[in-house]
Amino acid sequence: MLDLIKSLAVQNQSKIVLLVADGLGGLPLEPGSPTELEAAATPNLDALVARNVCGLSIPVGPGITPGSGPGHLGLFGYDPLSFTIGRGVLEALGIDFDLGPDDVAARGNFCTVDENGRITDRRAGRISTEASRPLVEKLRTIRLDGVETFVEPVQDYRFVLVLRGRDLGDGIDDTDPGRTGVAPLEPTARGEASERTASLLREFIAKAAALLKDDHPANMVTLRGIARRPPMPQFEEVFGLRAAALAVYPMYRGLARLVGMRILDAGRTYAEQIEALQRHWTDADFFFVHYKYTDAAGEDGDFQRKIRCIEEVDAGVPEIAALGPDVLIVTGDHSTPSLMRSHSWHPVPVVLAAKSCRPDRATAFGEAHCLQGGLGQVEAKHLLPLAMAHAGRLAKFGA
Amino acid sequence: MLDLIKSLAVQNQSKIVLLVADGLGGLPLEPGSPTELEAAATPNLDALVARNVCGLSIPVGPGITPGSGPGHLGLFGYDPLSFTIGRGVLEALGIDFDLGPDDVAARGNFCTVDENGRITDRRAGRISTEASRPLVEKLRTIRLDGVETFVEPVQDYRFVLVLRGRDLGDGIDDTDPGRTGVAPLEPTARGEASERTASLLREFIAKAAALLKDDHPANMVTLRGIARRPPMPQFEEVFGLRAAALAVYPMYRGLARLVGMRILDAGRTYAEQIEALQRHWTDADFFFVHYKYTDAAGEDGDFQRKIRCIEEVDAGVPEIAALGPDVLIVTGDHSTPSLMRSHSWHPVPVVLAAKSCRPDRATAFGEAHCLQGGLGQVEAKHLLPLAMAHAGRLAKFGA
Repeated sequence: MLDLIKSLAVQNQSKIVLLVADGLGGLPLEPGSPTELEAAATPNLDALVARNVCGLSIPVGPGITPGSGPGHLGLFGYDPLSFTIGRGVLEALGIDFDLGPDDVAARGNFCTVDENGRITDRRAGRISTEASRPLVEKLRTIRLDGVETFVEPVQDYRFVLVLRGRDLGDGIDDTDPGRTGVAPLEPTARGEASERTASLLREFIAKAAALLKDDHPANMVTLRGIARRPPMPQFEEVFGLRAAALAVYPMYRGLARLVGMRILDAGRTYAEQIEALQRHWTDADFFFVHYKYTDAAGEDGDFQRKIRCIEEVDAGVPEIAALGPDVLIVTGDHSTPSLMRSHSWHPVPVVLAAKSCRPDRATAFGEAHCLQGGLGQVEAKHLLPLAMAHAGRLAKFGA
Repeated sequence: MLDLIKSLAVQNQSKIVLLVADGLGGLPLEPGSPTELEAAATPNLDALVARNVCGLSIPVGPGITPGSGPGHLGLFGYDPLSFTIGRGVLEALGIDFDLGPDDVAARGNFCTVDENGRITDRRAGRISTEASRPLVEKLRTIRLDGVETFVEPVQDYRFVLVLRGRDLGDGIDDTDPGRTGVAPLEPTARGEASERTASLLREFIAKAAALLKDDHPANMVTLRGIARRPPMPQFEEVFGLRAAALAVYPMYRGLARLVGMRILDAGRTYAEQIEALQRHWTDADFFFVHYKYTDAAGEDGDFQRKIRCIEEVDAGVPEIAALGPDVLIVTGDHSTPSLMRSHSWHPVPVVLAAKSCRPDRATAFGEAHCLQGGLGQVEAKHLLPLAMAHAGRLAKFGA
């Protein structure tokens, strides 16, 4: 399908904005009550829905709960089942680490272990970025035979470990057991090609444990998402769109960079993101604007805060629309129902605004309304081709 | 999927009619107003919808605007992404040219060039079929080394050029630049296998230019869609249906012939097509009836004429239904909104009438109504298997 899109893509002056409210979709707290989005006052999004076309976006497939990687790849027009992005890769890209094609990256967490080596806190009391910095410096003193080692701080208790060398493998399981009361797992290779790399990581962890033993609560590390970057067809090459990302959080910048988007300085708030969008309006054809806090509120199980976050997203819509994008899509990368305190598989409301929309009967932006929408229930990966069609950027297929 | 259908197809006495109103789907001229189909008075189609099942057909994929080839292949049950039909092939098939598997066919246009060789009219003032006939005779005098050459009139300013010989290639770009003010392009091979063919076509065009130099406005030619016919699994072999086509326009007969349908004499009007359908009712199991003028009106941007065309289609439905087909499908191969004056990617209303329908709540044939239909939004290629199921022609899959 990417080949087809590439062969049909044509150039014009149109602009497309993709506004992603992370984890937008939700659930009612009890039967008969509204979802977060349905409860929120969203006059601007409602007006968009009433004049345009809406529907529900299926991030990966029915029943499949996506992480941030697959969720965004789908929105970027890629089949998320065809491209696997390890978390280590995401974290590395998100801090502007210049990851080489053969580098192996892992997401590291500082954690707390008791005297028996059992994890008591998987996030080391969520120590601050400042507190973790000297610990990262300690880890940087670790030397491993035959590979170059990079340890980079990320945020709070998180860091990135990158191994650079020849013949490294990334078929290695996470060492974070995902729960407390047990010891971290040993790095274990899933095949011969990764045996040496697993052994190097075991050595790294043993040395880290020795260096950190007096740094309670951050007296141990775990590694997750040990991976190389996948070879991805680049966004502009496939879709013919000069793409730019406005994301406050590192991971989403990393995802955008992975597909070749230009990363703009988005500031630290939604208002600053919109200002940056205005400032850079002539610099790209496609803008990805990422709003994180809907997801964060859902993950915290905070139904009311998620409502307020959605209302904040809504309040920015007129300023974005005022720029006159030919196509504006507002959706999420997945649902994060406050009720579940986690990502979920539920389809995500989506509205697509363009002059060539065939209006449907939906009049407000919400899960039930979007069920009546003209987009139907559509896999997320189809939204970008749809946007390109509405922007006049896809030529006719076949005679 | 074709293999599955083939393995499940069973024979019985049922009849299926596929009535295609070309470019049926539309758009409102302004938000809140009806589409062409919604504005048209279609009592017969409305009654079909009320008693049966409707939905929206996605010709190729979300956002993909199909040409007539992919649009019809989908309706014929083939995945339009798996079979590419060049325009030259379509045109050749549409004039009953007996195209061999190794022949290379091109759609030719007479065009007008100025004294500097720049195109001033890509269609030579749309000269009539009569006016182009003597010009075609001139082109027939051209001899090329090592290949047999056929030049056949089509309609108005269009002709078909066929090269027959050994080791011809069809990886050659169009010579029609798609705009005026520039010279026609040279036939250029996209690979070594087509170098000799490109060279032969350059020679043909040079000789044509010399022969036509005093025939203003038709003083030059362009070639498009240079192609061989794709190897297609034949309709009766896959679906077990003796299929017949009733199409007034050559291209649609050509498409039907490509998949192995029998081409019946359909006359020149919709009324004559229906008479032919009645006359041939016992001669086939599956009838493809193609109505062109909905698309033509849409391409002309004539909203009111498209309404009248839709009403003409509707008026013929009782006569078709009176024949007692076990399954009657009415849909289009794509949308052609008058607003856009072109084919578009928007899903196409479809109604399927059969005794085994599970009725939905839709009560009229129109884009918004069909959004409520029981077929949902379904890829066009699935409609034929659905029709076969309703006709009792698909056995159970698996034990």
